Formats: sequence, structure tokens, C-alpha cells
Amino acid sequence: MDFLVRVDASRAYGLPEDERIALIERERERGLELMAENVIRHFWRVPGTHANVGIWSAPDADTLEEALTSLPIHPYADIEVTALATHPMSRMREAAA
Amino acid sequence: MDFLVRVDASRAYGLPEDERIALIERERERGLELMAENVIRHFWRVPGTHANVGIWSAPDADTLEEALTSLPIHPYADIEVTALATHPMSRMREAAA
Amino acid sequence: MDFLVRVDASRAYGLPEDERIALIERERERGLELMAENVIRHFWRVPGTHANVGIWSAPDADTLEEALTSLPIHPYADIEVTALATHPMSRMREAAA
Amino acid sequence: MDFLVRVDASRAYGLPEDERIALIERERERGLELMAENVIRHFWRVPGTHANVGIWSAPDADTLEEALTSLPIHPYADIEVTALATHPMSRMREAAA
Amino acid sequence: MDFLVRVDASRAYGLPEDERIALIERERERGLELMAENVIRHFWRVPGTHANVGIWSAPDADTLEEALTSLPIHPYADIEVTALATHPMSRMREAAA
Amino acid sequence: MDFLVRVDASRAYGLPEDERIALIERERERGLELMAENVIRHFWRVPGTHANVGIWSAPDADTLEEALTSLPIHPYADIEVTALATHPMSRMREAAA
Amino acid sequence: MDFLVRVDASRAYGLPEDERIALIERERERGLELMAENVIRHFWRVPGTHANVGIWSAPDADTLEEALTSLPIHPYADIEVTALATHPMSRMREAAA
Amino acid sequence: MDFLVRVDASRAYGLPEDERIALIERERERGLELMAENVIRHFWRVPGTHANVGIWSAPDADTLEEALTSLPIHPYADIEVTALATHPMSRMREAAA
Amino acid sequence: MDFLVRVDASRAYGLPEDERIALIERERERGLELMAENVIRHFWRVPGTHANVGIWSAPDADTLEEALTSLPIHPYADIEVTALATHPMSRMREAAA
Amino acid sequence: MDFLVRVDASRAYGLPEDERIALIERERERGLELMAENVIRHFWRVPGTHANVGIWSAPDADTLEEALTSLPIHPYADIEVTALATHPMSRMREAAA
Repeated sequence: MDFLVRVDASRAYGLPEDERIALIERERERGLELMAENVIRHFWRVPGTHANVGIWSAPDADTLEEALTSLPIHPYADIEVTALATHPMSRMREAAA
Repeated sequence: MDFLVRVDASRAYGLPEDERIALIERERERGLELMAENVIRHFWRVPGTHANVGIWSAPDADTLEEALTSLPIHPYADIEVTALATHPMSRMREAAA
Repeated sequence: MDFLVRVDASRAYGLPEDERIALIERERERGLELMAENVIRHFWRVPGTHANVGIWSAPDADTLEEALTSLPIHPYADIEVTALATHPMSRMREAAA
Repeated sequence: MDFLVRVDASRAYGLPEDERIALIERERERGLELMAENVIRHFWRVPGTHANVGIWSAPDADTLEEALTSLPIHPYADIEVTALATHPMSRMREAAA
Repeated sequence: MDFLVRVDASRAYGLPEDERIALIERERERGLELMAENVIRHFWRVPGTHANVGIWSAPDADTLEEALTSLPIHPYADIEVTALATHPMSRMREAAA
Repeated sequence: MDFLVRVDASRAYGLPEDERIALIERERERGLELMAENVIRHFWRVPGTHANVGIWSAPDADTLEEALTSLPIHPYADIEVTALATHPMSRMREAAA
Repeated sequence: MDFLVRVDASRAYGLPEDERIALIERERERGLELMAENVIRHFWRVPGTHANVGIWSAPDADTLEEALTSLPIHPYADIEVTALATHPMSRMREAAA
Repeated sequence: MDFLVRVDASRAYGLPEDERIALIERERERGLELMAENVIRHFWRVPGTHANVGIWSAPDADTLEEALTSLPIHPYADIEVTALATHPMSRMREAAA
Repeated sequence: MDFLVRVDASRAYGLPEDERIALIERERERGLELMAENVIRHFWRVPGTHANVGIWSAPDADTLEEALTSLPIHPYADIEVTALATHPMSRMREAAA
Repeated sequence: MDFLVRVDASRAYGLPEDERIALIERERERGLELMAENVIRHFWRVPGTHANVGIWSAPDADTLEEALTSLPIHPYADIEVTALATHPMSRMREAAA
């Protein structure tokens, strides 16, 4: 099941700089793991902001929650999750393909 | 998987009265079916409004989408869906029970 | 009487980590008591956030207020309460059952 | 139990004038009944708007819902309900009195 | 003249605990005085929040402002004021009584 | 007592053109009367919008409500009223003058 | 360049039913063409709503505008476009791959 | 003096199609005149929407209001105007140039 | 040219008390100067808040910006500016006078 | 490709004054470089606020992101980016010119 996930890390910019840099490094390591596990399938930065937008895939909300709380940035993040359903057009396209 | 679903049917009140009454009747029939199938597990009216709030259960968003689009009120409804994850406290309670 | 209650504890993440962990521990103890007393009847985590959504049951708002202010997290929480009325469909279902 | 209730009837101003005037007349009759039954305890007009603000009293949300749906304006109204708890200062005042 | 006044004291919860407790004590003393002077005519707690909702009465906004700025919590409070007009139904009820 | 009043007449632009023009003409006549009575003390158009912003003066909200409901545009208007208190600086200026 | 595009077609549900069904059919034909041209790269339905969320790809906003205004639903749609930048983590992942 | 002006013409899409097309034609004629007079200095379409964003220049708000109300689309438009001041950096750049 | 200006100084209440009192004193001195120069033509306090609402007059936004940034409170203030155009009714009134 | 960019630096006003002044100086140096490179094509201050509004030009969102993250103020800024498409009227004007 797919989820549109927006993670805003603005609050982390209230941390002392060295702490924040170390946090972002750990965050990237964990993010790359989630990408390798295909939990994060698509990932972008919203230009100019401290937020990313991604398409996350998980069998259900519990598994998604585990992935999100595993992010080092989680305590400082404001996260919005939108559940996504398959669109009829995507089905039609797959059927045609 | 559980979803918090708010269905606001205010726009249906723009229909001619007889049409609206017939629509609400068909809506209740379908709603009772969904309750019987345990898709709608809990269901309330937000006092004074034309909105209900419910806990819907479906394996994933696709199945939820099917249930929601099967509602006769769907064309006139403004629906908000929030995916819900199991809370650690609920797990602790079940383990204790 | 049922209430839809959303408790957002983001502000607690401004506390020193050890203080926050101890606070959450006490919060869970109190939460489990409220579950045992059937004041908290259903409880979920909104994935990725520091918020939970629950169905709380209390004879009236005064009793609900007592339960909510008894939460250790209360000084740091942003809480939204929506009063819930029984939906006609739930009555129809009970009558049919 | 007290509720702060805001009823906005702007949508009724989309009705033909004669229909609207008749509707408001029936609305006032019903409102006076609810005042007589002490369901509506305090009632004001928000200046310049088509909205009123009132303190409604009902044992629970179900009874409040019955009162609100009995309003002729209900199909055209946008209603917001806030549950109210007794404030500690009100208790202190009563105790002192 | 009546005013609907919502006072949110969430920001006071950023103060050291002992300071906050002393502040709330002084706040209650001042509040009881305003109740005794019938400036605060009705007063409730919004369940779960650090906010109260009240019906304040003052000849005009200047007098209301004096009362509100006399609250010890004022520097930490977010206050919303809605002017209230007498509703035609209240006049009809008084005339009938 | 002064009030900041914003009157948005966008909804009147849903009327047939001739009806709307006649309505605006009657609205201007009434507005000029209220200006002559010093109820409307200052009046501006928010550029590009169908809204005006004004400083209205009335002894209390009831009198303001009478003035506002006397506007021909009232059934089609969305009106926001903010009560205004005298600012300490205005008092200092008057004292100095 | 990628864009997150949300298309809400609620307003189309004000059309007569047959007109709306024909419109949605033409909309799907056009949508499948855009998918075939890889302009629409990912596409989902937001469960319960009349809105879809998609990842659209276009060299610039002008080309995106052409694609969006070519949608038969465009006159009745409320569309939100968010420009997306490549995330550093996606670059790191591609470099590692 | 510069103004950031957003003109949203969504409401014009409620008109019969032929009326709307004629309106947009007249709107473009008037717009080109305003461009020629350097009242509209920069002009863009917000992709996917029925809104444009522009930098308008006028000696004051009265002159801007005249230009905006001269737009044929004005009765159906929702317009937001933000006054703009010269930025210190623009002054520094001009001084350097 | 007139501007509706709302200045909210809530953030200044995060300063140590003595610093804040000194700041407000300097703010009042500067405010009285601006009143004397007829830059601030009307000035009110929004009851209960740390905000004022005023009618400021300046030939253009640049001059207004200078006046606003000259306020000692400016670093801690959230300021909203609405450009105001002369209303046709005000012109009609002046012509009649 | 053009972007409407709003940069709000209010959070930087939480820094110690000397740090903030040094930061703004570096910010202006970088800003002038971006102006010289025609990345920032137009730039204004929103009067009274700590925000600027500008028209930025970049081949795509990635290049824009690089420019925005190069701003010294970036860690303390809240930035909104709106992609802009060429308006048909601008094309008509260029064709006519």
C-alpha cells in the first residue's frame, strides 16, 4: 500500500549546529536503508524548505509507523501521512500494458 | 487496518427534498451492509452537522476506496481519511489481558 | 457519552530526553489505567506524528476533563475534543441485532 | 452539560425570499420552545452575520443532536459544537456563595 | 454589552512549574473578583485544553480591555474577543415573560 | 465605541446584473445615510475585491447590529466585526494635545 | 523536472450525471495518453475524495501547464502544483547503485 | 509603487461556455492594454489553475483599484493584493550599477 | 495613501520583563512621533490581545516600510499590511459636502 | 523558468542581535551575487514584515534549490515556492511587439 508522506524537519534547525549536522548524517544513513528496502520508493525535496515529500510503501499503517519512528529526525519532525489508493487509470494502463 | 473517516454530506442538502430523502434511505441501507461486514466498526454523528465520524476497517486503501465509492452519498460527500496505526498502549493492554 | 479526542504531544519533545522518557513512561501507566476503567475505549497512533486519536467515554465533559488533566503529558499537550452523538444507523443496527 | 453552539444560516439566504422568511418564522417558534425548555440557556447574534452563538444545555450529545436537528434551519445551517466543562473557578465561586 | 471571550494560557506552560502554579493562583484570585463584579458572567473550561471560554459583560471594549489586562495570565495568554448582540429571539422571550 | 467592520459582497455577484446594480444603488444610499449619522466614520475599498473595510461607531453591539442589518446588501454579505478599544497611545496623545 | 500535482474534481459533480460520466470518460482517455507519454509518471486516488494525486514530469512549468489545460476536467478542477527538487539522498542512492 | 496581484477566475467557469469564452476574449484585450500602459509589468499563469499572478504598478491603491475594476472578469474574480516596498538589496544593486 | 496595519507584539512577551517594559516605553515614544507626523492617523488596541490596529498614511509602501521598521518593537512584531483604496461612497460624500 | 519565492526570516530574530546582524550582512552579499547572476530577477520587501517576495529564475527546481540553500538565512527561513508558467497574454504581447 502506498502513502504520500511529507516530513518537515524545521524544528531540528533549533538544535546546536554540530548536533544538527550529526543528526542529518544519521538520518541519511537510515533513509538510504529504507530506500534499499523499497519502503521509500520515491523521494524529493520541496525547494527552499526543510521538508521532503516521498512515496512510501508499507503493507499497513503499523509498518509505516515503525519505519517513520525509526528516523533519527522523528522527535523533531512534523509528519503528514496521506493514504493512497490505486487509481482506476493506473489499472487501465496496466491492463493495456 | 483502521481508518478514521469523516463524511460530510452538506452538499446533498442542495438537492430537491424528495431526492435527498430517497438518497439518505439508500445511504442507510448501504451503511448497514458495511456495518454487517464489519467495514464500518464504529460510527457517530457529529452533533448539529451533516457529518459522521467513523472507524472503518479495511486491509488497505484500495478496499477502503471501494467501500467509500459504494456509498450512494459519495458524489455529494466531502470525505477525509486518516490512516491509523496501533498504539503501543493498545499492544501493552492486549499483552496484559 | 463518547468523545473523539486527539492528543498531540509534540511540545513534550522540547524537554531534555531523560525527562521526556520518564514522562512518557508515567503517561503510559496512566493511560493503561484509563483503558482498564473503559474511559479510553479505542486508541490509535496517527502514523509519523506525536499524536494519538482515541474514543473516550465519560458521562459528561466534567468527567472527561478530569481524565484528561490526570494525564502526565497534559501540560505539554495540545488536545482537541469533539463530542459524538449516536448515529441513527447505529441505532438501526442495534435494533436489528 | 453545557455546549457552546454556533449556528450559521448563511446558506438559507440562497432560498427564494418568501421561503426564507417563512423558514425563519418557524425557526423562531422552535427556538422559543427550546428556550422555554431551558435547552437554549443563553443566546446572542454575532453582529452583522447570519450566525448566532448560544449556550445550550443537554444531558448528553444525543439529546443535543435531537434539539439541533429539530431546528427548521438545520438543513441549511453550518453548526459548530464545543463541549464545555465546569471551570474550577466556577466551583470555587459556588462554594464561596 | 456581552462579549464571548476565549483565553488560551498554553504559553504559560513554558514557565518553570513553581512560577506557573503561583501565576495560576493569582489568576484565580483575580478571576473570582471579576466574577463577583459580574464582569465574568459565565465561565467554562474547554475540556483537555489550557483554554477557558466565558461570557464577559462590560459597557464597552475599553472597560473590557481593562478587565482583560488586569489578568495576571495576560502576558502569556492568547485571547479572542467576539462582540455579541442581543438576539431577536431573546427579546421575544423577554417580552413574552 | 469603535468597530473594525469588513463587508464582503462577493455573493451579490451571483445575482442577475440588473438586480445587482439596483441593489448597489440602494446600498450606497443607505451607506451615505449611515455616514451622515457618523455611524460609518471611515470607509475604504480593499483594492480588487468586492469588500470594504470601515470604522463604524456605535454605543454597543446591538446598535451596530441594527445598522448592519439595515444594509440592503446584508442578505448577500459576509461581515466580520472586530471590537476596538482605545489605545493607551491615543489617550497619551489626547492628553498631550 | 517533477511536480506533485493534486487535481480535485468535486465541482464536476455539480454537472448533470450524463454530462459528468461523458466528461470522466474523455478525462480517462486523455489521462492514459499523458501516462503513455510519461508526463504522468505516478498516479493515485485519495481514498473517498474526488481528487487524485500524481507525480507529473515536464521540462518546465509551461509544458506542465499545457498538459494540465489539455485535461477535459480542467474547467471544473481545483489543481495544486508543487515543484519538486531531487533530494540529496536520491543522488546518493543513484551514485551507490 | 508595485503590487503583487493574484486574480483567480474560477467562478467565471460557472458561466455558460460561450459567455465565458467571450468574457475571456474581452479580458485579454483589456489586459493587453494594461500591459501596454505598463500597469501590468509582469504576468504569469499559476500552472493548472484559473489564476494569474502579476506585478502591477500604480502610483497608489486608488489607481490600482481603477485598473482592477476595469477588468471584464472583475465581477467573477477573487483578487488578492499585496503592497510591495523596494528591498534594500535592490537599492544596493542600483547604487552599484 | 491609506493602509490598514495590524501589529502583533506577542513575541515581545518572551523577553525578560524589564527589557520588555523598556522596549514598550521606547515604542510609545516612537508611536507618538508617528502620530504627530500624521503617519498613524487612527489607532486602536484589539481588546485582550497584544495587537493594535491602525490606519497609517504614507505616499507609498516604501515610506510606510520606513515608518514600520523605525518601530522599536519591529524585530518582535508580526505585522499585516492591507492597502486601502478610496471608496466610491466616500467620494460621493465629499462631493455632497 | 520563473518561480514566485517568498522568504520569511522571522525565526532569525530569535538569534542574539550581533549574530543576526552578521547573518543579514552575509545574506545581502549572497543576494547581490544571485541578482548579478540574474537568478533573482525582481525583489521586494513585504512592508512591515521580515519577509521578501521575489521572482527567481532557474532552469529547474534543482537549480533553484541550490540557489535557495546557498542563502545564509536558509536554516532560519520559512520559504514558499510557486512555479510560474508563461501567461498567454504575455505571449500575445511579445508576438505583437
